[in-house]
Amino acid sequence: MNFFKLSLLLCLIPLAFSEEHLVTDPHLPRPLIIELPQNSETRSDDPIEEARLRCTSWRVAVEANNLSPWKTIPADCVDYVKEYMSGGGSYETDLEIVSNEAAEFARSVDLKGDGLDAWIFDVDETLLSNLRYYGQHGYGSEIFDHIQFDNWVLEGVAQAIKPSLKLYKEVRKLGFKMFLLTGRAENKRSVTINNLTKEGFENWDRLILRGGEDEGKTAVAFKSDKRKEIMEEGFRIIGNSGDQWSDLIGAYVSMRSFKLSNPMYFIS
Amino acid sequence: MNFFKLSLLLCLIPLAFSEEHLVTDPHLPRPLIIELPQNSETRSDDPIEEARLRCTSWRVAVEANNLSPWKTIPADCVDYVKEYMSGGGSYETDLEIVSNEAAEFARSVDLKGDGLDAWIFDVDETLLSNLRYYGQHGYGSEIFDHIQFDNWVLEGVAQAIKPSLKLYKEVRKLGFKMFLLTGRAENKRSVTINNLTKEGFENWDRLILRGGEDEGKTAVAFKSDKRKEIMEEGFRIIGNSGDQWSDLIGAYVSMRSFKLSNPMYFIS
Repeated sequence: MNFFKLSLLLCLIPLAFSEEHLVTDPHLPRPLIIELPQNSETRSDDPIEEARLRCTSWRVAVEANNLSPWKTIPADCVDYVKEYMSGGGSYETDLEIVSNEAAEFARSVDLKGDGLDAWIFDVDETLLSNLRYYGQHGYGSEIFDHIQFDNWVLEGVAQAIKPSLKLYKEVRKLGFKMFLLTGRAENKRSVTINNLTKEGFENWDRLILRGGEDEGKTAVAFKSDKRKEIMEEGFRIIGNSGDQWSDLIGAYVSMRSFKLSNPMYFIS
Repeated sequence: MNFFKLSLLLCLIPLAFSEEHLVTDPHLPRPLIIELPQNSETRSDDPIEEARLRCTSWRVAVEANNLSPWKTIPADCVDYVKEYMSGGGSYETDLEIVSNEAAEFARSVDLKGDGLDAWIFDVDETLLSNLRYYGQHGYGSEIFDHIQFDNWVLEGVAQAIKPSLKLYKEVRKLGFKMFLLTGRAENKRSVTINNLTKEGFENWDRLILRGGEDEGKTAVAFKSDKRKEIMEEGFRIIGNSGDQWSDLIGAYVSMRSFKLSNPMYFIS
């Protein structure tokens, strides 16, 4: 069977965790498409069970940042990802575990009381769900279309991710400074504010979007730069919640990071 | 039901990815045991299916480094982990995907030909499997016992992890310098060499074990220090394969890291 016909865009985007020690030699690979080899062995005689096993393995590899960068989900995993995201699977349970763990950690922190202990939240697929959009676009099996997605964002109808809303409220109540750091562009500021507010997210301290000076930066570079600015203001970034590894890695990282599940897309 | 009664040892061990920017303020939490809250919702009426869902969520959270540090597997997930590790589950498939991806990446690298492109492999649960030992000790549900484990290591009968052996041979053939970097102590050098050789691992360039000067270091610190020494010798660490996040994060990280699945234990 043709499981794991996964097109991978291998490029020079930094995949290491520490910007200082990145290997950026020019002899390293330029963008190219790689197809994962087919696996000859099967673990189950039932093709549906077999697909479930293999697509779960793929999803775990995604969550452990083993496959990055990747461009679309494997063609044979569309039904699996759809089921995973849509109630039949464990997406919600996965988010609850991470949210509960983050809340336990937040409660365990002895805040200094100087107003400088901070928590960063990403927005898309972290606080707000675009599942309705992705459901209409193959759950990550279609190549990402910026224009169509922008139109969706401008509707301002993305829904709160419930475990994240619960975590958000608790972290805020504990006294952390609340930073929202999103790859959305500055021209989406008001629709983002309205969407977040309508969905129950309130009283953040700062909403940081991509400005003109951030154009052309990878998400890792953009978010690292913004965390640097935050730290240089004196804030201690205690926690960071995001659905992309690019929300969490790079330079000036938080004391502890929480990776929310997202098998639908990858951002470098 | 009592799923996820998971005892977590929250301590000051660095969990961030970049040593330079660690928040090490003394107001942050000291070692303490945390019990994850019970989750009131269930996704399935079948308790076995329900356990499978929840334990899979737990395992994915482990692989994404969301639960670190943790001390033992959840009591309710012992059967799940046993099944996962023992052929009925997807452990082998998970390892194959990561190994295949690492091999694709290795092949895509344009080696400079100066003998300085390097790949690091951890040993336990990366090249060699201690599954027989852990199977006799509750698959990670018992607190780790250094003395018993040392006795097991001294037997020298750990088995090759097949997908890793395949990757090892391919990476070596491609011309990478082969570094084995393990938390095993220096006094295990000869038994480790014999065990590795017997299992088919040959012609590595350097086997680095914990020496006297490394005592008391966390695995993250020990392995970061060793990578620093390797890089200072002029090597470019292109790939790094390990089953623990502490094999991969910290300072002087590789260009790309590959996290092998391990739901049985956690090393800081």
